[in-house]
Amino acid sequence: MKRFAMYPLAGIAILILGGFAGIAGSRAQTASDEPQFTNGNRLVRPANYRDWIYLSSGLGMTYSKQAGVPELFTNVFVAPAAFRAFQATGKWPDKTIFVLEERAAQSRGSIVQGGHFQGELAGLAASVKDVKRFEEKWAYFSFSAGDSSAAPNPRARCWQCHNDRGAVENTFVQFYPTLKDIAQKLGTYNQEKAANESGPK
Amino acid sequence: MKRFAMYPLAGIAILILGGFAGIAGSRAQTASDEPQFTNGNRLVRPANYRDWIYLSSGLGMTYSKQAGVPELFTNVFVAPAAFRAFQATGKWPDKTIFVLEERAAQSRGSIVQGGHFQGELAGLAASVKDVKRFEEKWAYFSFSAGDSSAAPNPRARCWQCHNDRGAVENTFVQFYPTLKDIAQKLGTYNQEKAANESGPK
Repeated sequence: MKRFAMYPLAGIAILILGGFAGIAGSRAQTASDEPQFTNGNRLVRPANYRDWIYLSSGLGMTYSKQAGVPELFTNVFVAPAAFRAFQATGKWPDKTIFVLEERAAQSRGSIVQGGHFQGELAGLAASVKDVKRFEEKWAYFSFSAGDSSAAPNPRARCWQCHNDRGAVENTFVQFYPTLKDIAQKLGTYNQEKAANESGPK
Repeated sequence: MKRFAMYPLAGIAILILGGFAGIAGSRAQTASDEPQFTNGNRLVRPANYRDWIYLSSGLGMTYSKQAGVPELFTNVFVAPAAFRAFQATGKWPDKTIFVLEERAAQSRGSIVQGGHFQGELAGLAASVKDVKRFEEKWAYFSFSAGDSSAAPNPRARCWQCHNDRGAVENTFVQFYPTLKDIAQKLGTYNQEKAANESGPK
């Protein structure tokens, strides 16, 4: 079974962080929206990502024919300045940072009798674009519960598939409807990569 | 079959809009984040809600034992100033505004073989708290595709259930994990209403 992200409270998920362009948006940029590092290339766990721009959610997304168990919700956020730059150019500025949040899926509770809604935090991951810091430009980080920082994941774990299959640079814009429209309009959407159905080995 | 929201492109969903407190956040407040009305009490379709604070998502949530078809994703956003006030008080300020966005759920595409990710916009709804404008304080609006404004829905359609079952005022904080923690800490969470499992008649 291969899932995009791992088990509840293991906090192993896929993220993309990066740098910021000085583009004004409806939210003021704050220093804490930029990726922060400690002890070399360890990414400090992003504190305020729930204030960032929401991109999309999935439920139980998997690139295996076998469903992931348990199915988790995945919510993706990107820092506001990176989003504003993407809106203008269809590309990610240096120091772009993404966060992928995993949450438990609940099916019963209060008036809900069917379908799924979100519960407790189950994992957190991030990705960063930093062309000076990382030879391969993008790096991926997984935070277990309680981790205040994380080292970059090995290239084979996240980077390779993001690089081979991401519609825009190393990012899965094919799964973010509002970004997909922008990238297609601005000519930065790689349809060939996005259409490739083979997941990571 | 009773679903929280209706069919793709019919744009019939449940939302909650309201007024704003002057609380500074990491996003600057803009005039367009406040609910705007036209021709009396018709709410102007919110333009920039994707820049607001994301609260949570559901997939196919229903208060009937029969599943909704097709299952849609529902993404809920609240205007930043209202969110900041809620963080501080556990209550909604006058002119709070929520948007509920419906999106199609896709199961196959690119490297995804299972689970669900979000596709095209399928509906939009909003709710507003405005104690001077609406006798019952909160009002609910559903936008069909192309609608630039919408009249308040009848009380029986949204307001009654929100009022009877919402954990905080007329809002379903029981389905928004980050707000639930805040309201419970600040003593504004109505557990009795949230635990009532009977949906609307």
